[in-house]
Amino acid sequence: MFRHTKNLQFEAKPEKPDPVFAHKLQELIGGAYGELSVTWQYLFQGWNCRIEGKYKDLILDTAAEEIGHVEMLATMVARLLEGAPATEVAEAVKDPVTAAVLGGMDPQQAIVGGGGALPADSNGDPWNGKYIVASGNLLADFRANAAAEAQGRLQTARLYNMTDDPGVKEMLKFILARDTVHQKQWLRAIEELRADGLEDEVAPSALFDEENQEHNSTIWHLSDGADGPKGGWTRDLEYLMEPQALGGPATAPPPDPALFSTFAPAASAAEPELAEGDVQTFYSERDGKWKNQVEGRKRASSTSDTKAEAQQAGRELAKNRGVTHVVRKKDGEIAETHDYS
Amino acid sequence: MFRHTKNLQFEAKPEKPDPVFAHKLQELIGGAYGELSVTWQYLFQGWNCRIEGKYKDLILDTAAEEIGHVEMLATMVARLLEGAPATEVAEAVKDPVTAAVLGGMDPQQAIVGGGGALPADSNGDPWNGKYIVASGNLLADFRANAAAEAQGRLQTARLYNMTDDPGVKEMLKFILARDTVHQKQWLRAIEELRADGLEDEVAPSALFDEENQEHNSTIWHLSDGADGPKGGWTRDLEYLMEPQALGGPATAPPPDPALFSTFAPAASAAEPELAEGDVQTFYSERDGKWKNQVEGRKRASSTSDTKAEAQQAGRELAKNRGVTHVVRKKDGEIAETHDYS
Amino acid sequence: MFRHTKNLQFEAKPEKPDPVFAHKLQELIGGAYGELSVTWQYLFQGWNCRIEGKYKDLILDTAAEEIGHVEMLATMVARLLEGAPATEVAEAVKDPVTAAVLGGMDPQQAIVGGGGALPADSNGDPWNGKYIVASGNLLADFRANAAAEAQGRLQTARLYNMTDDPGVKEMLKFILARDTVHQKQWLRAIEELRADGLEDEVAPSALFDEENQEHNSTIWHLSDGADGPKGGWTRDLEYLMEPQALGGPATAPPPDPALFSTFAPAASAAEPELAEGDVQTFYSERDGKWKNQVEGRKRASSTSDTKAEAQQAGRELAKNRGVTHVVRKKDGEIAETHDYS
Amino acid sequence: MFRHTKNLQFEAKPEKPDPVFAHKLQELIGGAYGELSVTWQYLFQGWNCRIEGKYKDLILDTAAEEIGHVEMLATMVARLLEGAPATEVAEAVKDPVTAAVLGGMDPQQAIVGGGGALPADSNGDPWNGKYIVASGNLLADFRANAAAEAQGRLQTARLYNMTDDPGVKEMLKFILARDTVHQKQWLRAIEELRADGLEDEVAPSALFDEENQEHNSTIWHLSDGADGPKGGWTRDLEYLMEPQALGGPATAPPPDPALFSTFAPAASAAEPELAEGDVQTFYSERDGKWKNQVEGRKRASSTSDTKAEAQQAGRELAKNRGVTHVVRKKDGEIAETHDYS
Amino acid sequence: MFRHTKNLQFEAKPEKPDPVFAHKLQELIGGAYGELSVTWQYLFQGWNCRIEGKYKDLILDTAAEEIGHVEMLATMVARLLEGAPATEVAEAVKDPVTAAVLGGMDPQQAIVGGGGALPADSNGDPWNGKYIVASGNLLADFRANAAAEAQGRLQTARLYNMTDDPGVKEMLKFILARDTVHQKQWLRAIEELRADGLEDEVAPSALFDEENQEHNSTIWHLSDGADGPKGGWTRDLEYLMEPQALGGPATAPPPDPALFSTFAPAASAAEPELAEGDVQTFYSERDGKWKNQVEGRKRASSTSDTKAEAQQAGRELAKNRGVTHVVRKKDGEIAETHDYS
Amino acid sequence: MFRHTKNLQFEAKPEKPDPVFAHKLQELIGGAYGELSVTWQYLFQGWNCRIEGKYKDLILDTAAEEIGHVEMLATMVARLLEGAPATEVAEAVKDPVTAAVLGGMDPQQAIVGGGGALPADSNGDPWNGKYIVASGNLLADFRANAAAEAQGRLQTARLYNMTDDPGVKEMLKFILARDTVHQKQWLRAIEELRADGLEDEVAPSALFDEENQEHNSTIWHLSDGADGPKGGWTRDLEYLMEPQALGGPATAPPPDPALFSTFAPAASAAEPELAEGDVQTFYSERDGKWKNQVEGRKRASSTSDTKAEAQQAGRELAKNRGVTHVVRKKDGEIAETHDYS
Repeated sequence: MFRHTKNLQFEAKPEKPDPVFAHKLQELIGGAYGELSVTWQYLFQGWNCRIEGKYKDLILDTAAEEIGHVEMLATMVARLLEGAPATEVAEAVKDPVTAAVLGGMDPQQAIVGGGGALPADSNGDPWNGKYIVASGNLLADFRANAAAEAQGRLQTARLYNMTDDPGVKEMLKFILARDTVHQKQWLRAIEELRADGLEDEVAPSALFDEENQEHNSTIWHLSDGADGPKGGWTRDLEYLMEPQALGGPATAPPPDPALFSTFAPAASAAEPELAEGDVQTFYSERDGKWKNQVEGRKRASSTSDTKAEAQQAGRELAKNRGVTHVVRKKDGEIAETHDYS
Repeated sequence: MFRHTKNLQFEAKPEKPDPVFAHKLQELIGGAYGELSVTWQYLFQGWNCRIEGKYKDLILDTAAEEIGHVEMLATMVARLLEGAPATEVAEAVKDPVTAAVLGGMDPQQAIVGGGGALPADSNGDPWNGKYIVASGNLLADFRANAAAEAQGRLQTARLYNMTDDPGVKEMLKFILARDTVHQKQWLRAIEELRADGLEDEVAPSALFDEENQEHNSTIWHLSDGADGPKGGWTRDLEYLMEPQALGGPATAPPPDPALFSTFAPAASAAEPELAEGDVQTFYSERDGKWKNQVEGRKRASSTSDTKAEAQQAGRELAKNRGVTHVVRKKDGEIAETHDYS
Repeated sequence: MFRHTKNLQFEAKPEKPDPVFAHKLQELIGGAYGELSVTWQYLFQGWNCRIEGKYKDLILDTAAEEIGHVEMLATMVARLLEGAPATEVAEAVKDPVTAAVLGGMDPQQAIVGGGGALPADSNGDPWNGKYIVASGNLLADFRANAAAEAQGRLQTARLYNMTDDPGVKEMLKFILARDTVHQKQWLRAIEELRADGLEDEVAPSALFDEENQEHNSTIWHLSDGADGPKGGWTRDLEYLMEPQALGGPATAPPPDPALFSTFAPAASAAEPELAEGDVQTFYSERDGKWKNQVEGRKRASSTSDTKAEAQQAGRELAKNRGVTHVVRKKDGEIAETHDYS
Repeated sequence: MFRHTKNLQFEAKPEKPDPVFAHKLQELIGGAYGELSVTWQYLFQGWNCRIEGKYKDLILDTAAEEIGHVEMLATMVARLLEGAPATEVAEAVKDPVTAAVLGGMDPQQAIVGGGGALPADSNGDPWNGKYIVASGNLLADFRANAAAEAQGRLQTARLYNMTDDPGVKEMLKFILARDTVHQKQWLRAIEELRADGLEDEVAPSALFDEENQEHNSTIWHLSDGADGPKGGWTRDLEYLMEPQALGGPATAPPPDPALFSTFAPAASAAEPELAEGDVQTFYSERDGKWKNQVEGRKRASSTSDTKAEAQQAGRELAKNRGVTHVVRKKDGEIAETHDYS
Repeated sequence: MFRHTKNLQFEAKPEKPDPVFAHKLQELIGGAYGELSVTWQYLFQGWNCRIEGKYKDLILDTAAEEIGHVEMLATMVARLLEGAPATEVAEAVKDPVTAAVLGGMDPQQAIVGGGGALPADSNGDPWNGKYIVASGNLLADFRANAAAEAQGRLQTARLYNMTDDPGVKEMLKFILARDTVHQKQWLRAIEELRADGLEDEVAPSALFDEENQEHNSTIWHLSDGADGPKGGWTRDLEYLMEPQALGGPATAPPPDPALFSTFAPAASAAEPELAEGDVQTFYSERDGKWKNQVEGRKRASSTSDTKAEAQQAGRELAKNRGVTHVVRKKDGEIAETHDYS
Repeated sequence: MFRHTKNLQFEAKPEKPDPVFAHKLQELIGGAYGELSVTWQYLFQGWNCRIEGKYKDLILDTAAEEIGHVEMLATMVARLLEGAPATEVAEAVKDPVTAAVLGGMDPQQAIVGGGGALPADSNGDPWNGKYIVASGNLLADFRANAAAEAQGRLQTARLYNMTDDPGVKEMLKFILARDTVHQKQWLRAIEELRADGLEDEVAPSALFDEENQEHNSTIWHLSDGADGPKGGWTRDLEYLMEPQALGGPATAPPPDPALFSTFAPAASAAEPELAEGDVQTFYSERDGKWKNQVEGRKRASSTSDTKAEAQQAGRELAKNRGVTHVVRKKDGEIAETHDYS
């Protein structure tokens, strides 16, 4: 259960409004590495954690903090938008500053949010649940957490360089600091997992015996840059300089005729030649019916559920036309031939 | 530029078809941590890498390999779907095995893909570009890469336990091995970045002096589990056991009247009382117009652009009605009162 | 700022696992009307609320509760998945119950979540930020809140009928009750807005004078059912039984030639006829260049930046071919004609 | 398996940076008809192709080329962004050119990509897997390919007109040329499918006999423009000038009571009138239970699983109240009436 | 079945083009509360309505009107884009007006739409089917309809204030009026549902007896604002000022070992100490196999399917190493100990 | 403007319910090539068409028909879901048929739609606006239309083979027929565009002269299949059997230091060696400040805005430490060296 205090974790007061920066700041709210992402990533990891104790508590302490980060940022956005020229008409713009402001605003912050923040990123794309990971494997997830905090701190640092406002910078300095703590704590927690014997270097710490032993220590050289093998990684891992494909051709099996994928059975080449106008009775794999077709026409003359019916119809047709009637078996082989010419 | 050989990097031949597993295997193709993700993550990182040499070459060697992994998986899916009962009608199902198969198939692999793989995950959600990260900061990105390979190996390991097919297991063993190599190589590359003095532990390796020094080493205890401070992470980081909000209340500024957010200026409480039926002329902040309103009615009787026009109309209305006419200043204060009763 | 207690708002203990229901229950977590939606809808509304006091406090009290609802549901899902046959192979299924379970499970809860809940709905589609509304207009938003709680209670009621488990039913009864409270409170808050004179029946309570007065009280009869006018709504609103389109034809203006939309200027019909083989020099609106074309050919023979160059080239061509040379003005009118036959 | 050479298929060097064009160029990378789309469309079609030989080889030759097109474009974007004023503050803008540049930049290319390309379109929407088609039916897919190359060339042509940079134009000329080749090759491949007897004009080339013969050659005139029948298409197809609906009304069946859709069984109108205060015992279709209700109250007084229990409870209630007790059958008909007044 | 007349429901003629406003107007076409949303919301509600008559007819009358609203807006957008400087190069901009226009345009309206409207919102995000609701419960759906029309009218009102163009304002006045009608009609229809006894105040009107009676009338005070209880809503609902969590801790059950979630069974703490180098034979829950491990090493020395095989291998290993061999039962308890030192 | 008749274009009555097929049929409603897609594709193309007359009328006639197709399918889905076992508990399943049905149902059709259709596809993914194309170029769009109808007919044909229900098959036969007509009409309209001289074979019919002439007729052989050149397409197009990359290396320019991408200026290698403990004053490109650093430490000792300040601080530090003080120029070159040891 959660409780809320209306005081912010840290102050979020800009010196003056700046609607263009309010637009960019959306990235830290609803971007792939924004605060909504770490909020849910840590909440779901905490709820899904299978070991009670220090790991779970660390995760949930951090999760609770992140909700408050969204709050700081949303408050900052509303304040940066105060008095924004949302309803200014482009044709009336008199100076380059206003022109830059009008061009750089987020239309939805005004039209949809009424001058407030949105759960979206700096291009207006909504936050979505696929941004987070909570796999139950703590090593895999702590790696993802350290990575998320790294991207978060990087984006915060970039935004820090995109504003001059002392109030905004003050809040971003706080967020930078928190992202530093959080990066460190997840890296320490990874060490702790190893110290506790719960996980090893590679996640998950299982199936090493089962995995392919021949290919678990080679880097395949598949791009022509020659410097890959100069890296320190070759202490543990070997560079395979002229790798060859190990598998056979990537072929797909014959299709299900009921799905109408284009296909030409090789056997079709071997079909006996009929004279133009002759009638043949045959089984169609496409729809599982028996059909009669006049040689040279595209479509069947008749279709039946049973061979008997089809054969009867074919015979009559051939007689009427005064041509040869060829009757095939289900597998296509010729069973009978009657000449009614 | 890229070249393709039709031979697979590793063999992808199931012993027999298994359409339910073909459904699940989609996760490794188009899931958030599937092979499409690492393909584009590494390609964009490689193209966006600002240092020529060993790092860039390692990234692009790996990128080229990952395209081939999509190929192996897509081929495997098509083969697992051979002869799938895609067109079987539920009402005709005679045994539990077929029931389980029918219930567990992906309808789109048949209807849309004609019995082939889709660029989607195991719930049919399409792969999208927000799954990847290529920030230009190699430390942040290598962390993300190690995390992605950890999730990838974890999911592969789970899928490994969901099949008995020796051919499928053989291919998954190869993928497990490659995910082991790739996890290791990105971790080694992180060490190399530090050895080369390019990045440090925390990403980005800048702004440490600027970040808030008071709050860059404390973990805030905001969830009631008591075990957080027992972790090894307290060697570097301090647990703040009773943290208090540092900011003021999270308030939003007065809204732009042109955006119609609900708002009650405090001054409105001080409005003088008029008798039912009296007329007042006043300025409306909502639309920037002058209006007349009969006390007790919901809507304005008239609206004007100038105070003069409005006052004139109000006067006439009050005279006609034989009531008092109150005229306000723009800020709401009463300017004049005339009694026409 | 937010604080978390690890005790659930209400107990979430199933009597026994049920992975199929765990799949369906995702709808209440990450569906369009699930608890993630009301969590963020209320948080953003609270942060964006422009009046301090009772409305804002009510919104934020409710917001804080909803985060705890996600927690209850996520915990319930993990418990419903305990011992789920996630790795059972379809081919080994021996009874209809297991067949139904295997067919009805969410593959991602196992492969991605490791047996835990996901921020997604019952079809695996991730929650996204477009599900919420926080417009700053309290009437519009409270309507949306009442509607969201109505859909939420409806879906909970449906899920209540999809399980026999007493523990699950107990939790759903609690959620049903909370959805009842929340529906009522938003409806009461709408009444309060009117009582306080902040908003009226229709949102936003402005622009009534400006809106089209002729068309703000008629229902247009555009579908052939005859019973629409029998409803009580005709007390306030008039049914327009044979409505006619009020506007002119929906035409689009001539396109920008630089964007290559297909277009045939009407004037082209009036072009003078040239004999097959004649040469004309003309200005092309498509690319803003001067061209020469031999009558009857599809493409230009030459293209120039200036008329002078083009005319020179056209003349030579016509001379060589022994035909007539027609030179047009920029607007297409014929300027000169020379016969070199 | 794939191999990569770091040389670009064609040069991608702008004369000078242009961050606004870098924003627009994203459309060719991650738009619905961008190079990521054709890359995966052709790769999946190739892997899913059921005929070895010329068609499959053509598809895969083209697929391999398209990955290289993404590379050219991503490289071009990074170069166009060199020195972009990403961190310039709007308030400091001094001239219209910078104002236009600031307003027209993509914030994510800086904040997320660090000055590089994104797998997204010119509005920042991420590429997704639903953009592609690989159905297994070659006619349907080659049509889609020709269409995709047409849209691709069209967008390239539009972008060609949005830049003056000779280096950019040079690269776009190459892409225009490649889109011309690819359009032609897919159109030729469609002819080849017919020549080979694999597919016909309409995809899929099956079920013609089964499809509704009466309605497979008429165009329904359902919009009031009168010129439709003047097109050449009436050589094969007939215009049905006054089409009438062939089906009955679009009604939905009675709902499942367990899903709580609003419903009023027609029979309810025929219910006998009870006096205010009388008690009736009846079966509720909504929840499949037996209930007692006092006439005039909204809710049931009691609910039971069996009729016997309910009838007993109703009898006692009626006796206590001194009123009439009406007992109904399951279908609503009155079974018994007892007067306890 | 639907018929179309090419005349617009209301005129859509701007006085002059305004590409920036064309960008913003997209919100009313493809935004979450745009006309595509109400079109499909009403169509699906109508088709899914289970009662023939007045409700269904009202829904479908309105649905048919909304398609025509999309048409008006799309036509308006195309006309606002006439002559837009889509191909102007930023570097050539000479005045602030053009700078503001260039910065504020939607690149996709030109590149993708060729100067026409898109089925997307004002940030270019495409309309999607999750925006609508059609639940079959008319009360829940009419609430959603009234809410949608409120947001729609609010956004239209905001856009009305963002333009000076008399032709655009005229069309928006019409839309404002229609949104007023539609809000009213859905509110009236809600009253009608109650009058007809079909639904009550809370949706769905069922399960009141089953829902948790203790918690269906209290508002939980979980945010520290003190004004919540001052609202009129406390007439019906009680404020619970110091609410306590009712459930136990939010724990997750032990994970499925086959899914590799991190887990430490409590029993592991009780493991007997072995000397460095000793061999133990034990059963691994992780993969269901029997293993031998040399104390102090990370990985197993051997893995077997049966205990017998493993014990045999362990014995030989211990003998070779001259150490103690410990054999455990499946549950971890020590079964045998042999010292081969 | 649009009008609606409640009669269906064609009957949509299944013989009996089939909830599994109702799930699959969603593909034709809300899939990428479902009826919602063609509805909006044709509506937007019609509204965006720049030539009045036969083309526009044909497009809008077809558009109006497609809305009615959604109606038929939505009605069919509701009828197929009548009596669906939506609330059946998996544990109670007694036979394989029910097991297959339960496993194959769409949970959202019940939970969200109350037993009705959704604007989503057969995997529950919502329809979105990026599925359609309306570019203004009729050739490009008619190609897309023919392709869309081909995929639509293909998917309908596949679904036709997935049901035995005569009523469903009857409706699908009608849709097959309409898809045949629509494919033909768009192909005829493409011929008409050429006959009218509006567009040519390749779209757009412009810029042929400008496009790269050397590369507009060659197919690049980049995949190792040898059969590509055997196709008929080589009549017009040449196969380039050993294509070489034409561009230079795909390098990215030096990054903006304010964005913190990892970068090592080549010059850094040439830095003079200082003894451990020495002090140097230098300009940092990372943040544009002057700094002092003690050799061997990671972070700067002090940071100043001006060189003067920094030099002063460095001097004092060196004096205090009794070491050498090196002062560099802005470009890194050594300007002064003072030894205070």
